[in-house]
Amino acid sequence: MLDLPFLPFCIFLGGLGFMCVAFVSAWCQHWRGGFALDGSAQMFNWHPVLMVTGMVVLYGAAALVYRLPPAWSGPKLPWKVLHGALTLAAFSLTVLGLVAVFRFHNDHGTPNMYSLHSWLGLATVLLFSCQWLAGFSAFLLPWAPAWLRALYKPVHVFFGSTILMLSVASCVSGINEKLFFSLKNGTTDYKRLPAEAVFANTLGLLIILFGVLVLGALARPSWKRPDADSPDSCQVPAPLR
Amino acid sequence: MLDLPFLPFCIFLGGLGFMCVAFVSAWCQHWRGGFALDGSAQMFNWHPVLMVTGMVVLYGAAALVYRLPPAWSGPKLPWKVLHGALTLAAFSLTVLGLVAVFRFHNDHGTPNMYSLHSWLGLATVLLFSCQWLAGFSAFLLPWAPAWLRALYKPVHVFFGSTILMLSVASCVSGINEKLFFSLKNGTTDYKRLPAEAVFANTLGLLIILFGVLVLGALARPSWKRPDADSPDSCQVPAPLR
Repeated sequence: MLDLPFLPFCIFLGGLGFMCVAFVSAWCQHWRGGFALDGSAQMFNWHPVLMVTGMVVLYGAAALVYRLPPAWSGPKLPWKVLHGALTLAAFSLTVLGLVAVFRFHNDHGTPNMYSLHSWLGLATVLLFSCQWLAGFSAFLLPWAPAWLRALYKPVHVFFGSTILMLSVASCVSGINEKLFFSLKNGTTDYKRLPAEAVFANTLGLLIILFGVLVLGALARPSWKRPDADSPDSCQVPAPLR
Repeated sequence: MLDLPFLPFCIFLGGLGFMCVAFVSAWCQHWRGGFALDGSAQMFNWHPVLMVTGMVVLYGAAALVYRLPPAWSGPKLPWKVLHGALTLAAFSLTVLGLVAVFRFHNDHGTPNMYSLHSWLGLATVLLFSCQWLAGFSAFLLPWAPAWLRALYKPVHVFFGSTILMLSVASCVSGINEKLFFSLKNGTTDYKRLPAEAVFANTLGLLIILFGVLVLGALARPSWKRPDADSPDSCQVPAPLR
């Protein structure tokens, strides 16, 4: 493939991630009444903002830590800590995003967990929590044996990409659902494609583009740490054989 | 990673693909009134069935053709023809699926192309058509030079997986949207989680599982044709160097 340099790609991706967060925040602020912590529709608005910021943008940034050229040489531990910290931050935002929607539903007598969006979203968050705990136990705690790390690493990498895919699918279905809920009865119908619909649909496409580019960067062989496939995933030297 | 054999995986995946088609057909037949060709809601019902069958199940089968062990040795041309034929069949079903929804909308005075689901879905189909034409021109027509094939192959592979991801996200948002449309006014609300909602949500999860497993199989190094990364993507022998 053409030899695309990583740094300009990263800057572009950072800009795209920033746009995703800016778009979802602007949507909720400008068209959906802004933010609050009182169980109202303004509390619900934290849900899309926190999910997009946590499960997509911050998660994507965390996934790419090992692709940074400075991470290619020297001890791996600092990069593992950074990866673990960023994913933990992403997970914390995600939990707050869930609190926002459950609180809103409960305060309005709306049942939780009935839509396909909610099933997929919660499954994604549960997978993410298992992934974080298993990754922490296997790669950051010192007592996992090297063979277990080598065995688990491709599984961790596979679920890392899978969770991002599921997050993007959850966001798309969530934005679509929210627009059908909001753009009716007194506002211009979704089907008349008012400015809010164009704006939020564009947000959905930006999220998809961000997710696809992160997954592409993760899959690109020339951007992988040269020793990525060796069983050296531990921070202590492997025994001589 | 554990050495999972391809054949049992393939049989499981085939069963899962069959279940996706059976579930979407049963949903439309049992709960949505069956099928017709008259522009009615029964004509719309072809849309989910054809999209799931074409853009997900048949497309996934086509993507895995080169992972079949018999495709690993001998001339590549028959496998290319099979891959091209299966993707063309998938594309044909997809176009019929689009005809079904456009005809239904037009006959009911409903605007087309306003929801995020429709934007994503059409973008996916357009990408698929470009991918098919470029793949046909580069890999099946005899006059593309070897260097062009080698250059384009990773791009084709990347977009192959991307299109499947986008298809799955389109299906999830489409099923979610259809349930919000259908389960109200006279039927049990979606939020009360009637049997139809559980059934169609399960369909969504089956489609996601199918897509994730196909993407995982495509990414698995030990299932790739051994020469997958060599620039031999032409059916004529490369010149000696």
